[in-house]
Amino acid sequence: MARTLARSPLAPAAFPDLPVIGGLRFASIAAGVRYAGRTDVMLAVLDPGSTVAGVFTRSATRAAPVLDCQAKIGAESGAGAAIVVNSGNANAFTGRNGEEATRAVTSAVAAATGLPEARVFSSSTGVIGEPLPHDRITARLDELTAALDPAGIAGAAQAIMTTDTFPKGATETVSLPQGEVRIAGIAKGSGMIAPDMATMLVYLFTDAKIDRAELQQMVSAINARTFNCITVDSDTSTSDTLLMGATGASGVSVTAQDAPFAEALERVMLDLAQQVVRDGEGATKFITVNVTGAASDADARTHALSIANSPLVKTAIAGEDPNWGRIVMAVGKSGAAADRDRLTIHFGALLVAENGWVSPEYREEAGAELMKQPEIEISVDIGLGEGRATVWTCDLTHGYISINADYRS
Amino acid sequence: MARTLARSPLAPAAFPDLPVIGGLRFASIAAGVRYAGRTDVMLAVLDPGSTVAGVFTRSATRAAPVLDCQAKIGAESGAGAAIVVNSGNANAFTGRNGEEATRAVTSAVAAATGLPEARVFSSSTGVIGEPLPHDRITARLDELTAALDPAGIAGAAQAIMTTDTFPKGATETVSLPQGEVRIAGIAKGSGMIAPDMATMLVYLFTDAKIDRAELQQMVSAINARTFNCITVDSDTSTSDTLLMGATGASGVSVTAQDAPFAEALERVMLDLAQQVVRDGEGATKFITVNVTGAASDADARTHALSIANSPLVKTAIAGEDPNWGRIVMAVGKSGAAADRDRLTIHFGALLVAENGWVSPEYREEAGAELMKQPEIEISVDIGLGEGRATVWTCDLTHGYISINADYRS
Repeated sequence: MARTLARSPLAPAAFPDLPVIGGLRFASIAAGVRYAGRTDVMLAVLDPGSTVAGVFTRSATRAAPVLDCQAKIGAESGAGAAIVVNSGNANAFTGRNGEEATRAVTSAVAAATGLPEARVFSSSTGVIGEPLPHDRITARLDELTAALDPAGIAGAAQAIMTTDTFPKGATETVSLPQGEVRIAGIAKGSGMIAPDMATMLVYLFTDAKIDRAELQQMVSAINARTFNCITVDSDTSTSDTLLMGATGASGVSVTAQDAPFAEALERVMLDLAQQVVRDGEGATKFITVNVTGAASDADARTHALSIANSPLVKTAIAGEDPNWGRIVMAVGKSGAAADRDRLTIHFGALLVAENGWVSPEYREEAGAELMKQPEIEISVDIGLGEGRATVWTCDLTHGYISINADYRS
Repeated sequence: MARTLARSPLAPAAFPDLPVIGGLRFASIAAGVRYAGRTDVMLAVLDPGSTVAGVFTRSATRAAPVLDCQAKIGAESGAGAAIVVNSGNANAFTGRNGEEATRAVTSAVAAATGLPEARVFSSSTGVIGEPLPHDRITARLDELTAALDPAGIAGAAQAIMTTDTFPKGATETVSLPQGEVRIAGIAKGSGMIAPDMATMLVYLFTDAKIDRAELQQMVSAINARTFNCITVDSDTSTSDTLLMGATGASGVSVTAQDAPFAEALERVMLDLAQQVVRDGEGATKFITVNVTGAASDADARTHALSIANSPLVKTAIAGEDPNWGRIVMAVGKSGAAADRDRLTIHFGALLVAENGWVSPEYREEAGAELMKQPEIEISVDIGLGEGRATVWTCDLTHGYISINADYRS
């Protein structure tokens, strides 16, 4: 059943005005997969000539649609592509039935759109372990294809939501010497979020013309610095999928050498990744964890995630308690190299601890005042080397417990 | 400040009747280290001839008393020993001041008891990052030594508590061909509990006569199967300490060949470890996670801890929701080898899922009924090999959030 959760206090003011991407149309429908009274299936169709890249969960218990996407993603094709997504049912841990349900949906979409089945990518999100009622989706494909609309992306962002309290979109327009191109993306996710690939569903589109292999390389590299650097609860979904389609409709060719494009794509992906954190289940604080001075970048990431995933750190922040001792604890337990007496800890610009102890100039009231803000920045210098990492997370509140103890997601 | 938390619903009916261990005396006192109106320092003195073994946190940000214990633990000595423990202040991340405070306490205890300083072991538990007011402890040592009492162990179990809602004790009497010996132990801990050594304070005593190196080997091996197999919140303390003293006062010599002794010691340690989980902050369910059929014992442990530490699994159990999909998710994210279609999941004796899908004979109502019990057993067979592990944990509730978001521990 769908529940109406209060919109996250950390949500952006409004859904952005996403541009039309040439060569791309969307439709959404209320198919009653599980939820009543809301859209729950979206279809995106990309024109012939589009390239598609993807990044997927590394969970050993991946859902059937993820395995199907992974089998298809590397192929070259000029035939166009479709992306079909349902919410309400993840089609995960559904055995052989799961593969059959995925095939039923992708083959019906292929027939309805005239695309080869190998070019139909699907995602499912929602409850695990229940058979996907695929006939509820396939029965409505004529309606869906008839409704395809170049301006339908905002509706698509709504249709893919589960426990999300707001739809997530981001866009950039990039002026290059060879012409102007647009990037637009949508995402869903608010629980079962941890950095093992996207840990959510993300669909990105551009009207730039990009070689498939180059697009894949770009998306994989930027994913490592954006979606793989967020965590809500350290739990990794079985269905995480990021797909990016480049339609080429602008006629403007883009390569990895076009830095402004890659930078704009990174802003879009980081914006969407941070929106997922801002919609973290029960979140009341948006937390940036910077680690510098680690023995390596990998060590910095280990420390940053140890802090960001620590229930004691997250509950302290929920309680607006500047409990830096719990940050020391999280650094100490991470397994990465650290020396107690070389740690330096800042909250925002406020020096809290250095040389193995609380700073003589630190006053608890100043720390407590900072903790009242909705956006908290924790910076830890390990004092050992040059390794650095930034991770984004949210606090752990009664809201998280209520959502997850009372709701069969 | 001390708060009175309601006694855990999972607590044992009563503190056990612990036997007097010959060659061992205890005293406790209210020194006002941080808490008012309760005892907060305990002293244990072991007669000459006692051997002492220990296991400690592997945190990179270990507290000063832990480092001091580690420096002292391996030495052979016939001089007897003392253990001094305060609650209210962990003397952790206190820089050079921390080492000075530890030395002030241990040297004063040495002077008061006539022991060499190298034979005085200390522990501190409580708030991190604040200087230990060691003079409040040293000022009371004459009173403490005057109060030493062979029957004082129950008072010691009280004095070492922090957020614990009940004192923890366990005992066994072992009849061996060469005579009868006694084991008695006390422990504290309810938050910041994760399996990286004891993750709490544990003091074990026996009147058996045991070689120091042999005692150390026995304690380390059993620790790996008991205290290192519990987790409340995946957070590892900076102060975890387990010390075991063997006074030899019974005149009965025990070696590693005396299986009944090792088995009894394991029962005592497992009992104390499980009592810590039963006092997990906010716990309403005691959860046993069995993993079998993993590629190795190490893989089994990785899967078991991934399940036991998953916030989504723990909140589902708090909500009495038989959400086995989250168990599949936790196995999938663990990083250890798994094959979705070979998993078998039981709740207690109830077959829930097999061959990659929910079992045809499983009924949700039966699962929901089981989840209402205070003791939940989750068994997952990975279907790949012979590896096995068992881990104990508790659920994640509003109580955990309340304790940790509102309390500066």
